[in-house]
Amino acid sequence: MSEAVRELGEKAALLDAADELAKVRDRFVLEDDVVYLDGNSLGALPRGVSRRLADVVEREWGRLRIRSWDESGWWTAPERVGDRIAPLIGAAPGQVVVGDSTSVNVFKALVAAVRLAGEGRDEILVDAATFPTDGYIAASAARLTGCTLRAVDASAMAAQAGPRTAVALVNHVDYRTGRLGDLPGTTRALHEAGALAVWDLCHSAGALPVAVDADGVDMAVGCTYKYLNGGPGAPAYLYIRRDLQPRFDSPLPGWNSHTDPFAMRPGYEAADGVVRGRVGTPEILSLLALDAALEVWDGVRIEQVRAKSLALTDFFLECVTRLVQPGRVASVTPAEHALRGSQVSLRCERAGEVMGALVERGVVGDFRPPDVLRFGFTPLYTRFVDALHASRVLADVAAGAE
Amino acid sequence: MSEAVRELGEKAALLDAADELAKVRDRFVLEDDVVYLDGNSLGALPRGVSRRLADVVEREWGRLRIRSWDESGWWTAPERVGDRIAPLIGAAPGQVVVGDSTSVNVFKALVAAVRLAGEGRDEILVDAATFPTDGYIAASAARLTGCTLRAVDASAMAAQAGPRTAVALVNHVDYRTGRLGDLPGTTRALHEAGALAVWDLCHSAGALPVAVDADGVDMAVGCTYKYLNGGPGAPAYLYIRRDLQPRFDSPLPGWNSHTDPFAMRPGYEAADGVVRGRVGTPEILSLLALDAALEVWDGVRIEQVRAKSLALTDFFLECVTRLVQPGRVASVTPAEHALRGSQVSLRCERAGEVMGALVERGVVGDFRPPDVLRFGFTPLYTRFVDALHASRVLADVAAGAE
Repeated sequence: MSEAVRELGEKAALLDAADELAKVRDRFVLEDDVVYLDGNSLGALPRGVSRRLADVVEREWGRLRIRSWDESGWWTAPERVGDRIAPLIGAAPGQVVVGDSTSVNVFKALVAAVRLAGEGRDEILVDAATFPTDGYIAASAARLTGCTLRAVDASAMAAQAGPRTAVALVNHVDYRTGRLGDLPGTTRALHEAGALAVWDLCHSAGALPVAVDADGVDMAVGCTYKYLNGGPGAPAYLYIRRDLQPRFDSPLPGWNSHTDPFAMRPGYEAADGVVRGRVGTPEILSLLALDAALEVWDGVRIEQVRAKSLALTDFFLECVTRLVQPGRVASVTPAEHALRGSQVSLRCERAGEVMGALVERGVVGDFRPPDVLRFGFTPLYTRFVDALHASRVLADVAAGAE
Repeated sequence: MSEAVRELGEKAALLDAADELAKVRDRFVLEDDVVYLDGNSLGALPRGVSRRLADVVEREWGRLRIRSWDESGWWTAPERVGDRIAPLIGAAPGQVVVGDSTSVNVFKALVAAVRLAGEGRDEILVDAATFPTDGYIAASAARLTGCTLRAVDASAMAAQAGPRTAVALVNHVDYRTGRLGDLPGTTRALHEAGALAVWDLCHSAGALPVAVDADGVDMAVGCTYKYLNGGPGAPAYLYIRRDLQPRFDSPLPGWNSHTDPFAMRPGYEAADGVVRGRVGTPEILSLLALDAALEVWDGVRIEQVRAKSLALTDFFLECVTRLVQPGRVASVTPAEHALRGSQVSLRCERAGEVMGALVERGVVGDFRPPDVLRFGFTPLYTRFVDALHASRVLADVAAGAE
């Protein structure tokens, strides 16, 4: 064992021993022979999910059946689970509703935002490095509302918004590089230009503090299967700021958003509140698995999560710098804390092959084309010793792959 | 016991003894002290679901995690489960995709249909008695595509379609009355008028034969939590006829419908095939519960289901006629087989109260405002003796409620 490895090992042990969140790891199903650094793609399984889901299936569906819409609270679950997510994004209750995919929620938010922006504003901005689906959906929203769509650099969004801009759709953390955007500043600048700000929180919520209320965000969307550990394809959420709700005019006004859905009236009348972000019948099994998964946050403060996230990514970058042969990888994740999400992205030749070899050796990250190795650090269950182990395996693989 | 009850009891016993589908009931979780006649709202729990879902959660998510998108076939599940549904609606493989809610799929189908219909066709027809969400969504699709929306009687749809009609959205079975529409005739007439036909199969698929391919249906949508027993809020499906797929232009072009989703390219390019009906990441837990639920159809022919459905509803109507005090209820479900779905709807004074009393006594149907008692007959698990029991309890309640 090299001197560097010994030193880093001692440091990892000290950091893990001092970690206030260390015990939260026990709330997840994890093995010791795998280092899972892909929680930014699919979060690990929280222990409480299996039992809860078995009860939902066997008792709520199997025995109570249709009565569960009332008696088991299925009907109101989208708002109730939304209120569990709300504190993680800095929202007061009554402004978050869960259901549908991120893509569908981006569509609702953008069309509604164009309608809110009103006459003379016929441009949608989207950040040029957006996760692709946001851009595809923004193009469709633009086409259907008669707007033009313009892709601009997230950092230039503030300067680019003008008198015709209705809304800008911005990713809080760049999925590829892990760069954290300036949510308060960009939102403020968009408002100064008279435009609305819709944020995609997929790669930030659950990993770092978000303050949608305090920062005046208009609408936000996010998925729940990454840092919120809700399970594969768990339903997304939509935040609609309270004062905008009465004018939120959904392009998907399904019966679940009706003010009196069981009256079965032919004419649509939108419900009050964030309920009007709903569409059709929610996928209850996936939704209640998410509900159970959110229990891992009990007693956890997001500031602790952020502190550990930065310490983990700092430490991983230090390990990589000291252990991986110089020149083999280069970080594209900002070194500055204020610009960093909760992942480390390393540019690497033959990144696809390298990641394949890492996965084979039990270090699970992912590959994003063309040349990025992506390592997500989920502070609820990742240890400093895991970060060291991952960098050691990367050093081996990188050396062997030459 | 009255003479009528004795006679009907003997008849029920004979019918149950001769029932080819009787043994299929064992594939469901059911109690003998409840008669569940609400499978047209939420189907009963198939026995295989619990074990499968536990495996999906504990092994596929808990242990394989991100690898399951490939190794457990999660990524292709929407098409695979679609192909399991296909035979139930008379579709050859490769034309049905599962995901999102019925409302969202109605939106995709209608906007895509307007785009397919082309220039000069700027009217959407919807049947006047439609399940409300279809009408709400049709209004939104019309608004976003610059069309007008016109509600017309389903039976008059053929006569009403004209040179400006782009598409008609028709419910195959009226959710309130149980009346079965003329799918082949209406589709033919719409085509003669140059319009497209989109069918809502929510209340027919799984209860009676549907032949979308043979009848030339353009697109169809349906839910899977009624006669398909997929569980609460189980994802809906979308049928896109094969020859229309290359021109299917989705208003919700999420990354799951991209030809190369993991290339993460900024420009949208639609995948070939029915995949282009997908949007965002599918809610895997709900989707795979549905997959498991569809196993109850193994060895079951839909013609057997239809024959038993008609026999059950005939027998229930006979029981009601003979046992319930004259004048208390009146069937609004057509007596003619060719016009009947798989439910019996009875008009009744104070129907809400009456249904409450039935449910208390273990006969579970539902109430649809203003005055309809709705009893769904799901041939896979409903027995003739159940139909008799339900009518006896109804007779008691109706007598007492006067």
